[in-house]
Amino acid sequence: MKNQFASDNYSGICAEAWQAMAAVNHGYANSYGDDPWTTRACNLIRDFFETDCQVFFVFNGTAANSLALSALCHSYHSIICHEMAHVETDECGATEFFSNGTKILLVPGEHGKVDLKAVEHTVNRRKDIHYPKPKALSITQATELGTVYTPAQLGEVGELCRRLSLRLHMDGARFANALASLQVAPKEITWKAGVDVLTFGGAKNGLALGEAVVFFNKELACEFDYRCKQSGQLASKMRFLSAPWIGLLENGALLRNAAHANHCARLLAEGLKLVPGVELSHPCEANAVFVSMPEPMIRALNERGWYFYTFIGSGHARLMCSWSTTEADVEALLQDVCEVAAAS
Amino acid sequence: MKNQFASDNYSGICAEAWQAMAAVNHGYANSYGDDPWTTRACNLIRDFFETDCQVFFVFNGTAANSLALSALCHSYHSIICHEMAHVETDECGATEFFSNGTKILLVPGEHGKVDLKAVEHTVNRRKDIHYPKPKALSITQATELGTVYTPAQLGEVGELCRRLSLRLHMDGARFANALASLQVAPKEITWKAGVDVLTFGGAKNGLALGEAVVFFNKELACEFDYRCKQSGQLASKMRFLSAPWIGLLENGALLRNAAHANHCARLLAEGLKLVPGVELSHPCEANAVFVSMPEPMIRALNERGWYFYTFIGSGHARLMCSWSTTEADVEALLQDVCEVAAAS
Amino acid sequence: MKNQFASDNYSGICAEAWQAMAAVNHGYANSYGDDPWTTRACNLIRDFFETDCQVFFVFNGTAANSLALSALCHSYHSIICHEMAHVETDECGATEFFSNGTKILLVPGEHGKVDLKAVEHTVNRRKDIHYPKPKALSITQATELGTVYTPAQLGEVGELCRRLSLRLHMDGARFANALASLQVAPKEITWKAGVDVLTFGGAKNGLALGEAVVFFNKELACEFDYRCKQSGQLASKMRFLSAPWIGLLENGALLRNAAHANHCARLLAEGLKLVPGVELSHPCEANAVFVSMPEPMIRALNERGWYFYTFIGSGHARLMCSWSTTEADVEALLQDVCEVAAAS
Amino acid sequence: MKNQFASDNYSGICAEAWQAMAAVNHGYANSYGDDPWTTRACNLIRDFFETDCQVFFVFNGTAANSLALSALCHSYHSIICHEMAHVETDECGATEFFSNGTKILLVPGEHGKVDLKAVEHTVNRRKDIHYPKPKALSITQATELGTVYTPAQLGEVGELCRRLSLRLHMDGARFANALASLQVAPKEITWKAGVDVLTFGGAKNGLALGEAVVFFNKELACEFDYRCKQSGQLASKMRFLSAPWIGLLENGALLRNAAHANHCARLLAEGLKLVPGVELSHPCEANAVFVSMPEPMIRALNERGWYFYTFIGSGHARLMCSWSTTEADVEALLQDVCEVAAAS
Repeated sequence: MKNQFASDNYSGICAEAWQAMAAVNHGYANSYGDDPWTTRACNLIRDFFETDCQVFFVFNGTAANSLALSALCHSYHSIICHEMAHVETDECGATEFFSNGTKILLVPGEHGKVDLKAVEHTVNRRKDIHYPKPKALSITQATELGTVYTPAQLGEVGELCRRLSLRLHMDGARFANALASLQVAPKEITWKAGVDVLTFGGAKNGLALGEAVVFFNKELACEFDYRCKQSGQLASKMRFLSAPWIGLLENGALLRNAAHANHCARLLAEGLKLVPGVELSHPCEANAVFVSMPEPMIRALNERGWYFYTFIGSGHARLMCSWSTTEADVEALLQDVCEVAAAS
Repeated sequence: MKNQFASDNYSGICAEAWQAMAAVNHGYANSYGDDPWTTRACNLIRDFFETDCQVFFVFNGTAANSLALSALCHSYHSIICHEMAHVETDECGATEFFSNGTKILLVPGEHGKVDLKAVEHTVNRRKDIHYPKPKALSITQATELGTVYTPAQLGEVGELCRRLSLRLHMDGARFANALASLQVAPKEITWKAGVDVLTFGGAKNGLALGEAVVFFNKELACEFDYRCKQSGQLASKMRFLSAPWIGLLENGALLRNAAHANHCARLLAEGLKLVPGVELSHPCEANAVFVSMPEPMIRALNERGWYFYTFIGSGHARLMCSWSTTEADVEALLQDVCEVAAAS
Repeated sequence: MKNQFASDNYSGICAEAWQAMAAVNHGYANSYGDDPWTTRACNLIRDFFETDCQVFFVFNGTAANSLALSALCHSYHSIICHEMAHVETDECGATEFFSNGTKILLVPGEHGKVDLKAVEHTVNRRKDIHYPKPKALSITQATELGTVYTPAQLGEVGELCRRLSLRLHMDGARFANALASLQVAPKEITWKAGVDVLTFGGAKNGLALGEAVVFFNKELACEFDYRCKQSGQLASKMRFLSAPWIGLLENGALLRNAAHANHCARLLAEGLKLVPGVELSHPCEANAVFVSMPEPMIRALNERGWYFYTFIGSGHARLMCSWSTTEADVEALLQDVCEVAAAS
Repeated sequence: MKNQFASDNYSGICAEAWQAMAAVNHGYANSYGDDPWTTRACNLIRDFFETDCQVFFVFNGTAANSLALSALCHSYHSIICHEMAHVETDECGATEFFSNGTKILLVPGEHGKVDLKAVEHTVNRRKDIHYPKPKALSITQATELGTVYTPAQLGEVGELCRRLSLRLHMDGARFANALASLQVAPKEITWKAGVDVLTFGGAKNGLALGEAVVFFNKELACEFDYRCKQSGQLASKMRFLSAPWIGLLENGALLRNAAHANHCARLLAEGLKLVPGVELSHPCEANAVFVSMPEPMIRALNERGWYFYTFIGSGHARLMCSWSTTEADVEALLQDVCEVAAAS
């Protein structure tokens, strides 16, 4: 239990997803997506976004991001993203691998959001063929640092992309958390803002595995099924990958799960703010809490069994909440933080 | 129900796998395989093969084969396989993609087994740098045509590979079916025969998804975890990919499932042999039955709702049995075949 | 001298190409093609084909073919070519490498020309995503077996490609030889027949190195300069790669060189036909002569110092003539063949 | 003439290289390097480095660097280099392309030399499989900023690589200039310092084109000929790529050319230092001079016809000297700089 704050992928499968899987586990179904549940899951996602998008289910987020980006770029292009973006820092060169060498260009930006001036500068500083041509911008919603782009900010991002002829990818591993945080219609922060393709995360929202790649720009989805197949991302028994999405979408579990995780994170953030020596590193806008605290406090918490990552600079800790985190879990952690702080 | 003979991946999740998944769906677990169930599943596979092999769980067979082969070859090498092998005919160039251009060289061979003379000829006919250097042989056990290499045949294959300095990959999407057919210890038809790496199939044996890549030649497994990660084949909630293997292996479900599927196929084959106009195309040694029958019979069966593939030459049909096929299903199909044959 | 018949790339640099190189070796020139000679060479090629094509100079034929094909295909596509085509048999998987896994599908065909029925069958036999989608046809003019597609045959090829939505690549490593053989305008056997992109060979026509990639379908040339750069095929001192083309094209050396090589091959073929035991394997239509002769004769010729390839089946020999072959060289070889034949 | 300072690849072919090409342009030679001149050129390079290294001739620097690095790394590895290194800034993602996705990690460092502490930090900050594993360090000698690593500095670099298990690549596009600057034996700054593979530049030293890839660690050269072939970097008429190296090496032209270019750069640097408003940005240790000068001065020089790059920050200019630069050229430029400075 005490390891749960390390990542929102330490949690299990939520009830709705589990039941949806159980519900399709009978009889025989055509493979590779030619089954009624996959059709239904795709349609639910179209309803969710209120548009006729193209939907593909793949196994994990690294593949979803890499495949989506490979559909936007040639090998001699480049992709711009935040220097803390998952595609840069945690996918072991998958983008470069799937795209056969596409370079990732990094821009800074406060609290994990790309600085638009830096994006523009990156596009304009080199126009010669000796440098990969910027072709796409990838943003993360919610960001790796637990913040959320507002609709207005996304509008500016989209506008910049149109002006610079950049295609726009959104890494939505925690898209549901962003949605629950903003309380807007999904379309407002995706295709209406100019997002061409979204990686729509499932694993961190209660699935065993699986992400949806959602193309709002349907031309870019051309032959994407071949891409999935060739790269080992086409499930034979697709119903077990798609049905859980029915479970998440049919009765609102997706947003409930996300809102709950966000709520727990907020509780945690508010509790931590009160502890002397602990400071929030970034606004808590989704399901992550980033805090700085003294090294001895971190060690003391570790000794009490709490496990979390501190990879973002010495003295910073990332604490993630998930759909299955309980208020009691949060209280237990806060209790120990307070005791440890008092002891030091 | 009448589509089930089209493929053994039309079936669902067997009870043992389902229960194993249910059993791990509680609390929190470290991600990416650093959990007790993944360790246990790996150890069960080591016990199964009676050797200290390296085990990796990936999402599907295309990825398992492609990744395994990419660990054996550089891009300028070539891989030899049977002209009907899955890596050649049904993976959409995945081997070439994962290996960045490795060429597949085809050899013929009766009933889906590689002709060893043809392998040797292929290795020796070109020794110049203008042609990709043969580096690996990939065989399929059970074969795509439903036959099974005997231990003696595998001994010859292994011996040839040693002599020609070829690494040996076994595509075991239906390895359990081969095992159940041969009734030998798993080691006898893998590492003892010189197999370097096995793609050990789970999906066709009752899992929702997931294959194990098993390196008997452990040197070749060096940094294979990085390969999996970079190519989008590392599950975050790994327990749900590995635990079902515990279900398959702990109490013998793997062999039971396979033996049952084989049994149904044999029933079907014996029944079909008696029908005038129907002929077995290949010996029925695992869970596939290949028959030739007149086009009108095929059409008549289709009209009665039976669905199966006839892609291997006009007039040939492939009928697959799975862990969930029942004797009654087989009887129902045979009944209709007989009626259709009588009517023509 | 006696090794010259092994390949038309055993010859040196012709006078016109040499002088053109010498003429640009003074002072300073902008690099990477931004120089007057490169512009002039491109324009001469446009004049040659009587159309506004896009021209790129790269270092060798393997790169020219692979880059051209990579511009026609994605990794999950396939390219159809003759089973004896250079891209299949002599480029060590370069097509697969440059295209990140594009599969080559082989068709047979008499005397090195693709059988159009086989092409159509290959396109139509599989339409599912488990097999790479045919996207391009690559033909070789003159063929690897020394024959030449007639304008009428090319018209049929082009028509088939239009009908099947295949892009059409022509490997013209010996395009000049084909032209000299057919004595038609270059446009008649390229863009008028539907060729999208031509690999226009220079090395075998008297250059030190270098091929031109000529896009008649200019849309496909989009960002091709980036492809060249990224794959290490953009010459810094481009003038030395482009100027020799001025030498070949300005005063007709290209066709003179090719016609001369063809003439020598014809002389050789006619002489060989008269020798008992020697038979032409393919019509001699360009600068290659393929003959079958008894093994002892081949050995005896080797012992007299003659060196040539016999890789196409036991007892077959390929004898190539180049721009620098002399009639005396041909006579000397014929003389020895006659003596050797008489002795056996 | 006034564009020559833009790059040392604006110059032509030096007399020694030209004569060496002329000397081999007669008769017939076996292709693909199986000729006496290629053997001789390789041996001269072995003599030059006083060791039994493996030598391969390829067409340009981008290919030489990318191929060399691809021999050191797998796709899931990473390569560390200076943030101004050519492989990062001017090869359009070629390293990533040839290696199928290998990531380049950047470190800072004064005057273009890698900061060793930053290298060590980069290797140690991440040890998990979610980030590409650092496998090689690539340094540039002379650097992109016209400085030269001393033997002592290289000793430290080599020692660090041994300690961190990094393979060491040296981009020696201007290796001859570094050598001429240091006046040490070539071995002292290559294999004795732990360099595994050197990209030995020819084009900037007086060749038309062509670089040598020199493996001091011969194990890493295993099957490198296949890599060259598959990636379109194997010249058919190899004698024209290798013979010019004989011209450079046989009578000392390589070092003469480099020393001359360095001498001109030093003259230029010393002259510029005296001009008010002009400042050297980096020590002038090879054939490049980097200066900052007021924008109006740059414009005024451009108006007088002088052409050079100012891509490194506003107000900085790079002035390159080559083997063919004359003292008079330098004087003419200095004269104009002085006049322009006086006028402002």
